[in-house]
Amino acid sequence: MPSTVIRNVRPLGREAVDVVLDSGKVSALLPAGGAPAEMSTLVDGQGQLLLPALVESHVHFDKSLWATPWRPNSAGPTRNHRITNEHTVLKDFKVPMAERAGPLIEHCIARGSLYFRSHLDVQTVWGIQHVEAMLALREKYKHLIELQLVAFPQGGLLIAPGTHALMEQALELGCDVVGGIDPAGIDLDPIRHLEQIFALAVKYGRGIDIHLHDLGEMGRWEVERIADMTEAMGLQGQVVISHAYSLGAFPPADLCALADRLAALRISIMTCAPPHVTVPPVAMLRSRGVNVCSGSDGIRDAWSPMGNGDMLERAMLMALRFNWGKDEDLAAAFDVVSQGGARALGIADYGLDVGCQANLVLLPAENLPEAVVNRSQQRTVISRGRVVARDGVFLAG
Amino acid sequence: MPSTVIRNVRPLGREAVDVVLDSGKVSALLPAGGAPAEMSTLVDGQGQLLLPALVESHVHFDKSLWATPWRPNSAGPTRNHRITNEHTVLKDFKVPMAERAGPLIEHCIARGSLYFRSHLDVQTVWGIQHVEAMLALREKYKHLIELQLVAFPQGGLLIAPGTHALMEQALELGCDVVGGIDPAGIDLDPIRHLEQIFALAVKYGRGIDIHLHDLGEMGRWEVERIADMTEAMGLQGQVVISHAYSLGAFPPADLCALADRLAALRISIMTCAPPHVTVPPVAMLRSRGVNVCSGSDGIRDAWSPMGNGDMLERAMLMALRFNWGKDEDLAAAFDVVSQGGARALGIADYGLDVGCQANLVLLPAENLPEAVVNRSQQRTVISRGRVVARDGVFLAG
Repeated sequence: MPSTVIRNVRPLGREAVDVVLDSGKVSALLPAGGAPAEMSTLVDGQGQLLLPALVESHVHFDKSLWATPWRPNSAGPTRNHRITNEHTVLKDFKVPMAERAGPLIEHCIARGSLYFRSHLDVQTVWGIQHVEAMLALREKYKHLIELQLVAFPQGGLLIAPGTHALMEQALELGCDVVGGIDPAGIDLDPIRHLEQIFALAVKYGRGIDIHLHDLGEMGRWEVERIADMTEAMGLQGQVVISHAYSLGAFPPADLCALADRLAALRISIMTCAPPHVTVPPVAMLRSRGVNVCSGSDGIRDAWSPMGNGDMLERAMLMALRFNWGKDEDLAAAFDVVSQGGARALGIADYGLDVGCQANLVLLPAENLPEAVVNRSQQRTVISRGRVVARDGVFLAG
Repeated sequence: MPSTVIRNVRPLGREAVDVVLDSGKVSALLPAGGAPAEMSTLVDGQGQLLLPALVESHVHFDKSLWATPWRPNSAGPTRNHRITNEHTVLKDFKVPMAERAGPLIEHCIARGSLYFRSHLDVQTVWGIQHVEAMLALREKYKHLIELQLVAFPQGGLLIAPGTHALMEQALELGCDVVGGIDPAGIDLDPIRHLEQIFALAVKYGRGIDIHLHDLGEMGRWEVERIADMTEAMGLQGQVVISHAYSLGAFPPADLCALADRLAALRISIMTCAPPHVTVPPVAMLRSRGVNVCSGSDGIRDAWSPMGNGDMLERAMLMALRFNWGKDEDLAAAFDVVSQGGARALGIADYGLDVGCQANLVLLPAENLPEAVVNRSQQRTVISRGRVVARDGVFLAG
C-alpha cells in the first residue's frame, strides 16, 4: 500500500502539518507543505484541527433501541424497576439487536469514535444471547473499530443463580472483560461478589470493569475493597470502576489517600459526569495521577431515551458538570475522552505520534477548547488510513 | 399579501396539517392536503415536526465575544473577580458589540429562537454604552425578532454610586425591564436594593427581572422578600427571578408554600438548569402552577466560553439535569423553552393556534420528545411568515 497524506492539519491545534500514512499507521509528521506533491492526498485538511479518534469507554450497545420508532420510556423509579422494565421491553422486541446496535455503531463512528468498550447483559432471562449477537457485530466491524466486550451481570451474580455459569460461557466465547455490579446494592453480599468476579478475571486472564452505583459511605467502602482485591490478585492496571458516584459525596480533600491508592494500582475511574447525581471529582483524581475515562452509558434504551454517542459532546457535558471554562480544563475534558479512554482500555498504539494507528478525526475548530465547546458535526473520520465518515454520514461498508 | 401555506407538518407531533399564513400570522390549520393547490407553498414540510419558535428568556448579548477569535478564559473564581475580569476583557475590546452580538443574534435565529430577553450591563465603567449599542441592533433586527432589553446593574446598584442614574437613563432610552442583582451577596443591603428596583419599575411602568445567585437560606429569604414587594407594589405577573439557585438547596416539599405564593403572584422563575450548582425544582414548581422559563445566560463571553444559544439543546440539558426521560417530562422541558418563555416575557400572540404570529420551526423528528433529545440542526425557521433560516444558516437580511 503506497503512502497517502493528510495535508495541512493542526494536531490538537498546534502548528499545521502534513500527516503521512502507511499501512494504516502514522508514518511521518512533516511541516505543512512538506509532503511530496506526488504523494496521494487522502484529505486536504485546509487547516482543520486534527484529533485522535475518540474513545467510548462505557456503552451498552446491546440495550439500545436505536434506529427503531420512538418508544416512550416506561421505566420505574428504582434500579431494580428499571432492570425488570428492560426485560419487558427487550424480551420480545421485534427488531433484532444487530439492526439496532449496528446502525448505532455506524452513527458513533460518524461522530468520531473508533474505540469502544461495550457492556453486554449476561442474565438468566436471556442467557448469553447479547454476547453472541455482539460478537457477530464485532466481526462485521473489525476492519473499522476496536470493540471490547464486557460480560456484565446486569441482574446480579449471587442473587440470580445460574448467572455465574453464563459469565463463564461469555468469557469462553470471547468477552474481553469481567463485569460486575453494585456488590452491596444489587448483589447484597459485597465481598462474595467481588471474590467471584476477581476469581473469574484471574481464571480467564481478563480485566475487570465494575458498575458501582452504590452511594455515599457504602460506595466508597466498596471502592476500597476493590483496591484491596486488585492488589491481592495482582491485577494492577486491569481494573476500571465505572460511575463510582460515591466518590462525589465527599470533599475531594478527604479522598486524597484513596486517590493515591487508585493511582498506584492503576485503577481507572469511568464517569459519564451525569448532572443529577454525585460524581467522582475528576480534576482532583487526575491531579493525583488517577486515570479517568468516560462514556455514553445507555443510548436511547429502555433506561433512558437520552444519548447520542458523541464523545466530544460528552467532554462538553463533563466540562459543564464541573463548571470548567479554562483552556486547560477543556483540554482535560478532551483528554478524558481520548487518552484517558485509551489508557483504561489498554490501547497501545493510540494517538497522533509516528507509529500510532491512523485513527483520526478532522474538524473545523480554532483549537482544542473550541472543538469541545462547539462540537462541530462537520467531522471527517479516518479509520486505519481510510476515510470512513464525512459530515456525520457513515461511508464505509 | 396573499395567503401562503406550509404543507404537511405535524404541530408538536400531532396529526399532519397544512398551515395557512396571512399577513405574518397563522390564519388556518387544515388537515394535511386540505389547503388549495393553487395557494402559494412557503414550505413543503414533508411530515416534519412543527414547533413554535423558541424563546430565549435570559441571555447577555452585550457580553458575548461571538464571531471573534478564541480567547482563553481569564476569570477568577468568585463572582466579583469575574465582574472585574470582564471589565479588563471588554473595556478595550477591538471588535465592537454590534459585530459580536449581531452575528450571535443571527446564529440564535438559525437555531430557532425568535423571542429574546437580553440583560444589558448598566455600570459606571461604561455607562449606558451597551444599551445604546443594543438598541441599534434591536432596530436592525426588529423585522425578524422580538427583543426585550433589561437594564442590568451587573456591578451592583448601591455599592456603585452613579448606577441608579444610569439605570434611569437606560429606562428612558427604551429598556423594557428593570434588572437587579444579588441584593445581599453583591449589593450588601437587600431591602434597600429591592426598594430601589421596585421603585424604578413603578416609576417607569416596567417589569422586573432580577439575577439571584445568592445561595441557601439567604437566597430563599430574598425570594420571599421579592414576593412581598411584588404584592405590595401590585406588580403581579411582571416579575421574573433569574437563576434562584437557592430554591434547589431545600427538599422541594419544604418549598410548597413559597411556590404557591410565587404562583399566586405570577412571579416566573428563570433557570438555565446548570449542573454545577443547586437549581430550582422545576417539576415541583410547575406542578404548583409556577411559570418556569429558561435561557442560555452567557454565550462565549468573559465569564465562560460555553454556550451556543440553542434553546432546544437547553431543554435537553434541563432534562439531563433532572434525569427526566418520560415523554411528559421531555415535553415539559420543551414547554419551558417555549410557552414558559412566552408567559414570562408576556408575549400574547405566541404559539401554533390561529391568530398567532407565524414564528415557527420545522425540523425532522418523530415527535416532541425526540426533537428535544436529538436537537436536529436541520431546522427551517419562519419569522412572521417568511423563511429566515435553513439547516443552521441564517438567510434573511
